[in-house]
Amino acid sequence: VPRSQELDEFALIERHFAPLARSLPGSLGLLDDGALLEIEPDHKLVVAADMAIEGVHFTASDPPELIGRKVIRYNLSDLAAMGARPLAYLLALAKPVNRSSDWVGAIAGGLARDQEEFGISLVGGDTTSTPGPAVLSITVLGTVGVGGALLRAGARPGDAIFVSGTIGDSALGLAAAMGELGRIDASDQDYLLGRYQLPSPRLALGQALVGIATAAIDVSDGLIADLAHVCRASGVAATIEAEKIPFSAEARRVHAQDERFWRASLTGGDDYELLFCVPSDRLGEIEALGHAADVAVTQIGSISDGTDVQVIGENGEAVTFDHGGYRHF
Amino acid sequence: VPRSQELDEFALIERHFAPLARSLPGSLGLLDDGALLEIEPDHKLVVAADMAIEGVHFTASDPPELIGRKVIRYNLSDLAAMGARPLAYLLALAKPVNRSSDWVGAIAGGLARDQEEFGISLVGGDTTSTPGPAVLSITVLGTVGVGGALLRAGARPGDAIFVSGTIGDSALGLAAAMGELGRIDASDQDYLLGRYQLPSPRLALGQALVGIATAAIDVSDGLIADLAHVCRASGVAATIEAEKIPFSAEARRVHAQDERFWRASLTGGDDYELLFCVPSDRLGEIEALGHAADVAVTQIGSISDGTDVQVIGENGEAVTFDHGGYRHF
Repeated sequence: VPRSQELDEFALIERHFAPLARSLPGSLGLLDDGALLEIEPDHKLVVAADMAIEGVHFTASDPPELIGRKVIRYNLSDLAAMGARPLAYLLALAKPVNRSSDWVGAIAGGLARDQEEFGISLVGGDTTSTPGPAVLSITVLGTVGVGGALLRAGARPGDAIFVSGTIGDSALGLAAAMGELGRIDASDQDYLLGRYQLPSPRLALGQALVGIATAAIDVSDGLIADLAHVCRASGVAATIEAEKIPFSAEARRVHAQDERFWRASLTGGDDYELLFCVPSDRLGEIEALGHAADVAVTQIGSISDGTDVQVIGENGEAVTFDHGGYRHF
Repeated sequence: VPRSQELDEFALIERHFAPLARSLPGSLGLLDDGALLEIEPDHKLVVAADMAIEGVHFTASDPPELIGRKVIRYNLSDLAAMGARPLAYLLALAKPVNRSSDWVGAIAGGLARDQEEFGISLVGGDTTSTPGPAVLSITVLGTVGVGGALLRAGARPGDAIFVSGTIGDSALGLAAAMGELGRIDASDQDYLLGRYQLPSPRLALGQALVGIATAAIDVSDGLIADLAHVCRASGVAATIEAEKIPFSAEARRVHAQDERFWRASLTGGDDYELLFCVPSDRLGEIEALGHAADVAVTQIGSISDGTDVQVIGENGEAVTFDHGGYRHF
């Protein structure tokens, strides 16, 4: 085997991961049994975890620079949905036995970029070898002021429902990756693929919504499924108007080819946009918050008494869906 | 497929994992984007992660009840080594596609037992399906008073070196599992196998050592390798006396068969005992602390100026080892 494959765990950590831990003293340089972190007074800890498996959540041919960033962004999106500020993360990585350490280095390089972008530091984790597919498991830690966290429960009848950004790009990007968008321009496919490969967690928006939104979630299981999660947690119903759902121009061109792509956009998931509810007396503040957070915010419907999620089509009739969202098992 | 294999992710979480989250309100019942945890005033957060892969860290024939407990105990041992009190954990689980949900239930059942034993709660994680071997990735959260954490750095010349419990049982238990202890009594093999399958994190001892030990680590890479970690972090040398290292009666009977088993006991790792250093003026307190924590504590050597780890044999000469500890890659 080439020298690069002989690197043992300690050398891999020292070479690729210790540099990612230098900015936060509490990481102890990844040299101790754990990390030692300070939580600001009057703040709570927010913590979430996500695991990605090669062949399920990414492929062996995906650029390794993007793999770690994608998983960390899944997690950061969870922090965004709770209004939390990111603090640090832990990475457990299983490297296929014959994969080179350069592949690990490329993942670490991608993580370094996201650390800078989102102001976080690696503080711990684990590395191991696997006879199976590669696995990345990331736990992210953040903080939110006591009483400030955005939860799924809290939406009330009369609240308006908003989403950030555009919906469905990621589901269509996956379709592009699978060669299902043959008649679509390459530049449109590239845009959608990019949205699938590298989601944009809406951290600034989530933090700005603290004290304003009554409920929030990030759209990971699909717009309809995630709205249903909010309704279930809050004990309310929701109606969204199909024509108000924000789509990118690229997604609209795909929808024009086949109505099934439109349906996939509402149920496909992996959007990592924020879905949130706002009481009627705060509606006037939302556009400015979106502007400050550099992301579009669009009102798509409203909360009412009941338990259902209804999508009203352009003809004024309810649209039905076979199933609302992605299932991992 | 039988009905039990059709359970989707939400049903699996609801059935097997939500019950593990009920004791801590901050888990939000695993129903939100993350958990929301309070850290006591004047305390720091301690966090560590470990990943275990089927075929590497456990086998498909291991009792599933023990798999989760083993991984969580690896992590709790890290908290013990830092003097921290456990608070909560997150579990990311990849289930092989054809594995039944009963297997998941058995893992959850084992975790429930350890939650009770160690006073912790599940607060989040992820479940997914994998075409490869099963994966468990656990992140554990604990707390320690500000300024109280035990670190690897801090050992000083003149300090005594202690270990808890007995060393090498786990390495020999692995040898038993691999059928390498053919001439050893079945009851001895069972004892050693049990120590390998279910380590005992020394949480009470670790917490009791806060303010007394100058450095601590848990023995996971092997006694010699982990002592070397302490020496490197502290900038000191260490000498241990082979005849003082505490072994179980079962391990001694294996050592009597072949000197290589003795060597394996010092380098094999997975002991999850605490190795710690104590200044000479505090030596008198240690035995009582061990007694209160219900674990033997044994002085095995001392810290001096320098950089090496030396093991002195019964004949007074240094024993040499090919390599000091386990490498994960």
